[in-house]
Amino acid sequence: MGSGRVTLVGGGPGDWDLLTLRGARALQEADVILADHLGPAAQLDNFMDLTGKEIIDVSKLPYGKQVAQERINALLVEHARAGRAVARLKGGDPFVFGRGYEEVEACAAAGVPCSVVPGVTSSVSVPAAGGVPVTQRGVAHSFTVVSGHLPPGDARSLVDWDALARVGGTIVVIMGVRNVRAIAEALIDAALPPTTPAAVIQNGETPAQRTFRSTLADLPDLFERESVGSPAVYVIGEVAGLAHA
Amino acid sequence: MGSGRVTLVGGGPGDWDLLTLRGARALQEADVILADHLGPAAQLDNFMDLTGKEIIDVSKLPYGKQVAQERINALLVEHARAGRAVARLKGGDPFVFGRGYEEVEACAAAGVPCSVVPGVTSSVSVPAAGGVPVTQRGVAHSFTVVSGHLPPGDARSLVDWDALARVGGTIVVIMGVRNVRAIAEALIDAALPPTTPAAVIQNGETPAQRTFRSTLADLPDLFERESVGSPAVYVIGEVAGLAHA
Repeated sequence: MGSGRVTLVGGGPGDWDLLTLRGARALQEADVILADHLGPAAQLDNFMDLTGKEIIDVSKLPYGKQVAQERINALLVEHARAGRAVARLKGGDPFVFGRGYEEVEACAAAGVPCSVVPGVTSSVSVPAAGGVPVTQRGVAHSFTVVSGHLPPGDARSLVDWDALARVGGTIVVIMGVRNVRAIAEALIDAALPPTTPAAVIQNGETPAQRTFRSTLADLPDLFERESVGSPAVYVIGEVAGLAHA
Repeated sequence: MGSGRVTLVGGGPGDWDLLTLRGARALQEADVILADHLGPAAQLDNFMDLTGKEIIDVSKLPYGKQVAQERINALLVEHARAGRAVARLKGGDPFVFGRGYEEVEACAAAGVPCSVVPGVTSSVSVPAAGGVPVTQRGVAHSFTVVSGHLPPGDARSLVDWDALARVGGTIVVIMGVRNVRAIAEALIDAALPPTTPAAVIQNGETPAQRTFRSTLADLPDLFERESVGSPAVYVIGEVAGLAHA
């Protein structure tokens, strides 16, 4: 398999220029790029010549989610074994809800060299794009990034929302549009004040970005009123109420 | 004050090539760069010509921490008011325990235009450099980044460590070297199993990086045994025990 190798590249939240220099170089050196629909995949020609490169849009793979991931793993291994430099361009950071470690494991199992280039995670940069810092001295000494893809109380959930409500720091929810009402209610039931500031950033770091400020109690209605859809990140905590500088 | 402006740039965890393309451009266009000792400040000449630029190492300001921050804020405003393009190069991401929002507020109060370029946060990328993903499907649906600069129970602490122990996700502690024993004990007292996997990454993403795997119970002794000093990040949770791929 010669020089075949895989590099997972964190593509950042959207705009191509939030790629890292190291990530951009890995893409430039790649023979094959497997890209998600999230992240800067559509803007690659802003900083590189795509001639001679094979670009595979894995978001278009005609399978369900789990099969698609297995297929991605197989493609990574297959192309690397054919001696190619393979770049796997992912949105945000590869290890923040990106299933990146599953790809690392698949390469390791196949004996394919794999390295990881971290990226700007949407969980921090999208709130920032909406003017919300996830930490602030004297306001929040911690922040929790949590996937809202399962509602509180779901048997498959690994999150104790009751405990989370009492940690005292910022809560950043991603993939939580559908479950916003259940999540807000669970946090209020766990004694997080309904007046806790909240902020929503939809399509963060893209030209279509929309930002809304609210309270925890009003958050679900805000989503309905403004027809907030995915992708959206919401932030719950005092930092969401800081004067918009 | 003409074209004077401030750009906060997240410099990433250390190596210059983990800067974003947007951040690198802001540095290239700057007349003045105020840099911390953390991050890629010492490696700027890898990607830009420093001729004609003023570089101020604010980690050398001869003041205590709080005064130094006020002095940094004043310097940002002063240089921007003189019509200069000012880049403020910070380690990691500006809003993750970087006091970046205080600088944004200072600029806003002074009427100085200020923008923020997010960066690769050390809280995610340093664990990754040690082979630890902060999330993994079926293992952790959340991660909490917490500052360990105050011990659990300190009156000034904003963190409920007891609740944090029960959230069910990954815990990433930064600035917590000195308080590692108190933090590990508080988490165990709150019923996090002593056998919970843990990992420590010292000097992450630098040539001096050292990585250790451990358990929550053994973590404080490991720090003593190996003389782990700052900067170090430690990760507590099942993700720290994933097979090292």
